[in-house]
Amino acid sequence: MPVPAPILYPPFNIVRLSHVEYRVTDLAASRAFYVDTLGLQVTDEADGVLYLRAMEERGHHCIVLVEAEAPSVAVLGFKLFDEPDLDKAADWFAAQGLPVAWVERPYQARTLRTRDPSGIPLEFYVTMDRLPPIHQTFKLYNGVKPLRIDHFNMFSADVDASIAFYNAIGFRVTEYTEDAESGRVWAGWMHRKGGVHDVAFTNGRGPRLHHTAFWVPTPLNIIDLLDLMSTTGYLANIERGPGRHGISNAFFLYVRDPDGHRIEIYCSDYQTVDPDLEPIRWDLKDPQRQTLWGAPAPRSWFEEGSVFDGATMVDSALKAQPIIAP
Amino acid sequence: MPVPAPILYPPFNIVRLSHVEYRVTDLAASRAFYVDTLGLQVTDEADGVLYLRAMEERGHHCIVLVEAEAPSVAVLGFKLFDEPDLDKAADWFAAQGLPVAWVERPYQARTLRTRDPSGIPLEFYVTMDRLPPIHQTFKLYNGVKPLRIDHFNMFSADVDASIAFYNAIGFRVTEYTEDAESGRVWAGWMHRKGGVHDVAFTNGRGPRLHHTAFWVPTPLNIIDLLDLMSTTGYLANIERGPGRHGISNAFFLYVRDPDGHRIEIYCSDYQTVDPDLEPIRWDLKDPQRQTLWGAPAPRSWFEEGSVFDGATMVDSALKAQPIIAP
Amino acid sequence: MPVPAPILYPPFNIVRLSHVEYRVTDLAASRAFYVDTLGLQVTDEADGVLYLRAMEERGHHCIVLVEAEAPSVAVLGFKLFDEPDLDKAADWFAAQGLPVAWVERPYQARTLRTRDPSGIPLEFYVTMDRLPPIHQTFKLYNGVKPLRIDHFNMFSADVDASIAFYNAIGFRVTEYTEDAESGRVWAGWMHRKGGVHDVAFTNGRGPRLHHTAFWVPTPLNIIDLLDLMSTTGYLANIERGPGRHGISNAFFLYVRDPDGHRIEIYCSDYQTVDPDLEPIRWDLKDPQRQTLWGAPAPRSWFEEGSVFDGATMVDSALKAQPIIAP
Amino acid sequence: MPVPAPILYPPFNIVRLSHVEYRVTDLAASRAFYVDTLGLQVTDEADGVLYLRAMEERGHHCIVLVEAEAPSVAVLGFKLFDEPDLDKAADWFAAQGLPVAWVERPYQARTLRTRDPSGIPLEFYVTMDRLPPIHQTFKLYNGVKPLRIDHFNMFSADVDASIAFYNAIGFRVTEYTEDAESGRVWAGWMHRKGGVHDVAFTNGRGPRLHHTAFWVPTPLNIIDLLDLMSTTGYLANIERGPGRHGISNAFFLYVRDPDGHRIEIYCSDYQTVDPDLEPIRWDLKDPQRQTLWGAPAPRSWFEEGSVFDGATMVDSALKAQPIIAP
Repeated sequence: MPVPAPILYPPFNIVRLSHVEYRVTDLAASRAFYVDTLGLQVTDEADGVLYLRAMEERGHHCIVLVEAEAPSVAVLGFKLFDEPDLDKAADWFAAQGLPVAWVERPYQARTLRTRDPSGIPLEFYVTMDRLPPIHQTFKLYNGVKPLRIDHFNMFSADVDASIAFYNAIGFRVTEYTEDAESGRVWAGWMHRKGGVHDVAFTNGRGPRLHHTAFWVPTPLNIIDLLDLMSTTGYLANIERGPGRHGISNAFFLYVRDPDGHRIEIYCSDYQTVDPDLEPIRWDLKDPQRQTLWGAPAPRSWFEEGSVFDGATMVDSALKAQPIIAP
Repeated sequence: MPVPAPILYPPFNIVRLSHVEYRVTDLAASRAFYVDTLGLQVTDEADGVLYLRAMEERGHHCIVLVEAEAPSVAVLGFKLFDEPDLDKAADWFAAQGLPVAWVERPYQARTLRTRDPSGIPLEFYVTMDRLPPIHQTFKLYNGVKPLRIDHFNMFSADVDASIAFYNAIGFRVTEYTEDAESGRVWAGWMHRKGGVHDVAFTNGRGPRLHHTAFWVPTPLNIIDLLDLMSTTGYLANIERGPGRHGISNAFFLYVRDPDGHRIEIYCSDYQTVDPDLEPIRWDLKDPQRQTLWGAPAPRSWFEEGSVFDGATMVDSALKAQPIIAP
Repeated sequence: MPVPAPILYPPFNIVRLSHVEYRVTDLAASRAFYVDTLGLQVTDEADGVLYLRAMEERGHHCIVLVEAEAPSVAVLGFKLFDEPDLDKAADWFAAQGLPVAWVERPYQARTLRTRDPSGIPLEFYVTMDRLPPIHQTFKLYNGVKPLRIDHFNMFSADVDASIAFYNAIGFRVTEYTEDAESGRVWAGWMHRKGGVHDVAFTNGRGPRLHHTAFWVPTPLNIIDLLDLMSTTGYLANIERGPGRHGISNAFFLYVRDPDGHRIEIYCSDYQTVDPDLEPIRWDLKDPQRQTLWGAPAPRSWFEEGSVFDGATMVDSALKAQPIIAP
Repeated sequence: MPVPAPILYPPFNIVRLSHVEYRVTDLAASRAFYVDTLGLQVTDEADGVLYLRAMEERGHHCIVLVEAEAPSVAVLGFKLFDEPDLDKAADWFAAQGLPVAWVERPYQARTLRTRDPSGIPLEFYVTMDRLPPIHQTFKLYNGVKPLRIDHFNMFSADVDASIAFYNAIGFRVTEYTEDAESGRVWAGWMHRKGGVHDVAFTNGRGPRLHHTAFWVPTPLNIIDLLDLMSTTGYLANIERGPGRHGISNAFFLYVRDPDGHRIEIYCSDYQTVDPDLEPIRWDLKDPQRQTLWGAPAPRSWFEEGSVFDGATMVDSALKAQPIIAP
């Protein structure tokens, strides 16, 4: 099998992805998009920073928007299981020769900042401020009714290396795309929290963030969002979908925020908690892995992504993907 | 207004579109598509002819499939209100110099066969054999759960002429596309039964049948059909969608039968029974009229259609449509 | 057949039900219910009167709320096809010895006011002010996303007489409940606009308005309304449902406005335009006619209704219905 | 807080609930219910035993039906994380003075059989035969489209004791009902796999199994099942719903199998992987905890349950629940 066997006892225990910090160039425009259109809830707003959570989340934030001169991704955040895991994580990253720092982050207790080997900025914490439940405060539901952050998807210039690294810290591969010609893994989906993925990596100039995804109740909420965006000035922000991915079986829509950061709206993948879950292999030549129903993705979807602060991008050694697109 | 005012008291009373007879080259393949995949119900099958109805229909058939050497459309059928309407229709078509014949049609009482001025073969009847209701026999629901035939859409080489003709026999325009440059109507949607259309006409080499549409309960049934077709050998038969039309506001999917006849699966248009309903105008340059959400249609959707038996096709005098497509 | 054959050529042409005028005791409370909770759109508000329309309606109002000392129903409104129909209607009602008056009604042209033989106040018009379409202004959709007024349902002390009267003016029976013991019709559903009903009558002390119904896109919108009402102080206003009626096949929910006027939220009945559509008979002893899935209705649903201004109520001669209820 | 704090490092690692073995009196009748009506897939059938799985499961079985003279529950099965967990579990149960046995179970590797202190028969395994994925074999989807087994709900004569026991082996409380008068916990919901529960306990004569639940894609699938059951002879098997639970926020339906075993169909709870997730408290006097929308449950739902083989039932010391029911 071209993907590594899962590490059942990783060096520290990651519960799930937690949050992303985006740099954005016009916070009011971003607020109109994330709050008034997608329906995320504001948990704090001050001095050019906006904190958001989704409807069933009790942690303080899943998105932090910071006004800046140019758009970028400042950090990807993950929640650890228990306090000792934080120290184990710090030791482990240091042992790999990766940068380790303890940082002050509003609404988060002790927070470890580091990078993965490709330069993606990561932070880990155990405790974030908890807020009262609002999942049954139905008058607050709006837009696409986002329930929770679901996953990060990243371009990687060396997907095999990315998978090996995240496998080593406990992420388990659920599905992957193999380039049969080169024998290399083209893309991989890896989870901690029991869905198809918390993180995914796709071959391409990297590291870059391809998208952050939010889980919604049903495909009809995605149709509602399409109707809303296409009649409120966001037509050009609709990039791809609606459709069903072969990989993950998810019903999806991709939209772009005012700075071009890509957001996936997503529902209906499957439970993956079994440690002996067999990864599903897809062939790079099978277009149904991307869209089960056959419609191609636009070229922008294959080529554009958000840069990570402080990371140096490199091209992939693999030849360009055979794009089937308009 | 570039479309004619509705004729409130037409020469005869058409209730609704009723049925289409398709010639198909492999009846077993057609049955697998229409019955096993779409979920239409067989009401008779004998000697190379298959009769189908949808779940809430009590008339004997909405589709007749006849095995033949080449695919074509034999006739479009319409139900009239009362027996005197049949004779009024015969008189009216004869007065227009159009062919008139009384034909024997299985399961239909007195049936009038004629053609519109462009050559489209039409038949009118008042009484078709009625079958017991099955709309609450839920174990029969299958495929996309088709409830009823909804409309015919045709290529016309002279849309203004087509609209004028069908307006004269009582169809009322609900929406239309205008070519602002030429001042011509590019496409028109016309109804009798109280939805957005029983018939529609689009500029192009004609006459040809662009598609026959079926009404289904919700968008989720269309998603179910996409999942089914894309995993049972019908991936290449999925042509366009799912999406929302600007025109008609319908949620749609277009699929092709084994002979290339195009079927639209459709739900959620609106009620149009008011005789003073104002037609909605769309500009030919507005791509949202076709897909509210912006995704373009494939070239085949603009160019391919089914020929009518015995009709002579001509090219439109209008210049080719600005196709925004892959 | 215990219901009369349809009159194919009635004395005047009713297009559809149009609007209801409710008297309510607290207009602000009614607005909170109909506008903020159900999602109807305000088209005018002045001097203790509120006009509302649903999302796909282009006529000015489907509900008129008038502040008053006690709740009641002032009138049920219907749209006629053409101007001559108004005069034919006036003549016909006068010939029956029923009251006829021409009244001034805001936003309506020439309006005929009369009563049916049981005393239900009716008004007929041809022309109501038309408003721009908002069915694709998706940011306005709210609450249960009401698309259009669908029907009125009334208690009648003599259902056979009510059906005979409305049949005479062109309403056609689609379904009915028969009391096999007495041979009497217990309830009947009658349409003009091509759905299962514009009006329905059920045995009971009458005349009273049992409910006014609104059509919504899918059952999920009804679930959304239940979630909203049960967490915004309207729990006690949820009376019955969600469920599927055997009769009409509709997915339903019944709620009560702040004055107790009953509103049905409704979707998924079927098309009834065929003049030879056979009425479906249900037996009074079959509980699935009311709820296909078996759950009983509460006693209030059988017993309570809104009084009509100026009508004298009488008890039905039929014995009380065998209520299967908590 | 009246419920215990979660044990972050339990004595062994339970991944999730896995399967239930029901004894049934007529296997053909059970097959018609579980396979032809609910849509579960047969994975083996021989000698009076039927093995079933749901659509996204890759383990061999989630229900085992064994023909017997009287209905009962033979065992509840759970999957452990790794082989050492099996031995740790055996040691732990033995140390509690609970029965421990290694049993041969078809399609399961090493299997530990024991009982909880109330007598509920339990079995634990690490490895069950794995089957190829069928979650994208859409032609197999049928009935309510069951995706996976979700949870067991049990009557317990001492809910505090049940919660304490399952908490000790790693289950974490997500929601609970408190009897404010007695200060006792009336009911509790506890999870391992990241949803609201794998197991739940409600006060009552016990131990008995109240129900086994299956997860489905959307509320519309539950509506489809209601339509199907109510027209195929299963009307009397519909016990309660559809509705929304306050507790867990799930959209639910309860049906009874031919022997009276209760099955819940369920969707839309929320993610609970955070170890610091605060349990939600409900008051026994709040009827919305049971049905957010207010409709009461029938008396049978409160009183009836399935007996466990070999367990001795006792009455609860708490006074009877204030049933609000027909």
